[in-house]
Amino acid sequence: MASDGLGLVQTQRAVLFDEDSPLVMHSGATLAPVTVAYETYGELDADGSNAVFVCHALSGDAHAAGHHGDPARRGWWDNIIGPGRPLDTDRFFVISPNILGGCGGTSGPSSIDPRSGLPYGLRFPLITVRDLVAVHRALLAQLGISRLHAAIGGSLGGMQSLQWALDYPDEVARVVMICASARLTTQNIALSAVARAAITEDPDFQGGDYLQGPRRPERGLSLARRIGHITYLSEESMRRKFGHARRGGDGAPMTMSSDFEVEHYLDYQGESFVKRFDALSYLYLTRIMDYFDPFADPDLDLARVAKARGGDGVDFLAISFDTDWRFGSEHSRNIVARLAAGGARARHEEVTSPWGHDSFLLELEPYHQLVADALAGPVSAKPPGA
Amino acid sequence: MASDGLGLVQTQRAVLFDEDSPLVMHSGATLAPVTVAYETYGELDADGSNAVFVCHALSGDAHAAGHHGDPARRGWWDNIIGPGRPLDTDRFFVISPNILGGCGGTSGPSSIDPRSGLPYGLRFPLITVRDLVAVHRALLAQLGISRLHAAIGGSLGGMQSLQWALDYPDEVARVVMICASARLTTQNIALSAVARAAITEDPDFQGGDYLQGPRRPERGLSLARRIGHITYLSEESMRRKFGHARRGGDGAPMTMSSDFEVEHYLDYQGESFVKRFDALSYLYLTRIMDYFDPFADPDLDLARVAKARGGDGVDFLAISFDTDWRFGSEHSRNIVARLAAGGARARHEEVTSPWGHDSFLLELEPYHQLVADALAGPVSAKPPGA
Repeated sequence: MASDGLGLVQTQRAVLFDEDSPLVMHSGATLAPVTVAYETYGELDADGSNAVFVCHALSGDAHAAGHHGDPARRGWWDNIIGPGRPLDTDRFFVISPNILGGCGGTSGPSSIDPRSGLPYGLRFPLITVRDLVAVHRALLAQLGISRLHAAIGGSLGGMQSLQWALDYPDEVARVVMICASARLTTQNIALSAVARAAITEDPDFQGGDYLQGPRRPERGLSLARRIGHITYLSEESMRRKFGHARRGGDGAPMTMSSDFEVEHYLDYQGESFVKRFDALSYLYLTRIMDYFDPFADPDLDLARVAKARGGDGVDFLAISFDTDWRFGSEHSRNIVARLAAGGARARHEEVTSPWGHDSFLLELEPYHQLVADALAGPVSAKPPGA
Repeated sequence: MASDGLGLVQTQRAVLFDEDSPLVMHSGATLAPVTVAYETYGELDADGSNAVFVCHALSGDAHAAGHHGDPARRGWWDNIIGPGRPLDTDRFFVISPNILGGCGGTSGPSSIDPRSGLPYGLRFPLITVRDLVAVHRALLAQLGISRLHAAIGGSLGGMQSLQWALDYPDEVARVVMICASARLTTQNIALSAVARAAITEDPDFQGGDYLQGPRRPERGLSLARRIGHITYLSEESMRRKFGHARRGGDGAPMTMSSDFEVEHYLDYQGESFVKRFDALSYLYLTRIMDYFDPFADPDLDLARVAKARGGDGVDFLAISFDTDWRFGSEHSRNIVARLAAGGARARHEEVTSPWGHDSFLLELEPYHQLVADALAGPVSAKPPGA
């Protein structure tokens, strides 16, 4: 890595929408105010043309890069954001918010409902990817930015980037979707359903009102994370990392506890997740993905996407990893096929990586090079549609 | 299907081992008595040479074929066992026991411990595939049979058949292993570990002593079954069966409940499973598989297997299904490669089926033909080793 990366960064807070002009969600429900936690890295140029918007995945947050005081504890995408890195902060103004429904400072089901003074719980309105984008756009407007050099994200983040460009193609010059999907498989939905059931069936879930005590559904959330985590790693990466190694060595007696290293690792993943993530957010954000299906929208106008930005159109890149079995290459190929069939400029690149879905978080040179190249084009000074 | 299958059948019960001569398990623990529930179909011939032994998988039981009074409710492998069927009861004497550790009438962790008068719970000794085979052999001896025309089973059943022939090659003329494995992948272990955790972390599990009340860990067992069930179906079979269909139709509102048909189906699978299966058996029988690794045994003597039965050797057939992602074709290929490397007679056949691991329960003509052909050889009148 050429640079040492970003230094100390701060999470900021924006309050968007108000009772007179609430966020109108896709379901028709309204929400106000909406607080958004976000970070920015780099400097916005004079004509506001160098903004790159990072959309995070299921368990991400606003803290994508740099550190909050301890240089050893860095943001979740620190390896790709910084001076000289693919999201080059010497060149771009990078914006990274926590998404609506999350639990990292942005309004979500664990926030206080101003009407009741109590946490929303399951009374928080159901969310779609379009609602995430609506909040992203409101944040962008508040920052005085009208268009993006790029929107980028992995998994659920790629879904947000895609939806944004489909609905507002004049606002987004390029989209980089990494191991994203435009439509979950039935198996994807099934795995998420079981993970959610682990939460909602935990007696400590208490119908979603656990934030008022006495206990949170930690067992259920941990179980959900362990189920999910198996889908983030490939079979090969699990074999490489853990094989059949046992904590007590080969001669240790068989027990019903976590004898195998992989069991111990999953236990750890579950335990650490419950310390940083909220069970209600897990429910809401996985449900978003089950319903994501932008190409089924009868109002989708791909010709408009292809001709946007004064005829340049949006430039779409879908990157996938060959061992990803959550949203494998067929998902990316499907996105690109649908875009291309509508005349949009889209291409797919498959990267070889043993690490499965989680590859999007790793510093893999061919992958980072693809991202760097995708963002390398000139920032456009011309206003959208001009 | 040529025949109407078997009619009324009865489950029988054998009591094996006693305090003076207990079952000595692989761990060194002893168990006595051991009750075995079993069924037989067809007639044993005069020289006891036409026995086919069926080893069931994780959630099976002794009731493999025929019915217990309601002809509409038939055994779990009824489509393959019966007059004129691949396990032809006009020709073979088919034996089907519930396995040790199960909950279908054979001794297991939910049985009463004669020393305490209470259910064993987690005090039941841990089991290996060798222990399952030891009980099968004791049942066979009690039936007065000294050798098998064939041992056959799917998944965990295939593991039992394999282990039997490796340890006692003079007793088993042929082995048919269907979607079995000789060594789980790390991902296999991880999925089973999470399913077990769903059970043991259910507050109603009560450290395994739930049989004394007040509640059984039904949520946990149901969740384990739902996790497992996703691995029994292929991605393609889930898509074909359920796609993205929603219970309320396309216009139904998004909710956090089981909107999608696949979610409803998994709920049903979980609910029906807890009515017929025991959570402790689920723990014990999945743990057996995690540790199964017969080719790692330093005492394994494949030359003996190859030369057994007076030089004929054991005939091994491994059948797999191309869409099985629990124990896919690579598992069967591995078994056959290991056997063949040791000089044993072994071959692998991959069957095309969209239905994943559960294909072994289905009436698929090419698969049934392979089984029929494998059993077609003459029954051997000569005593083992002669």
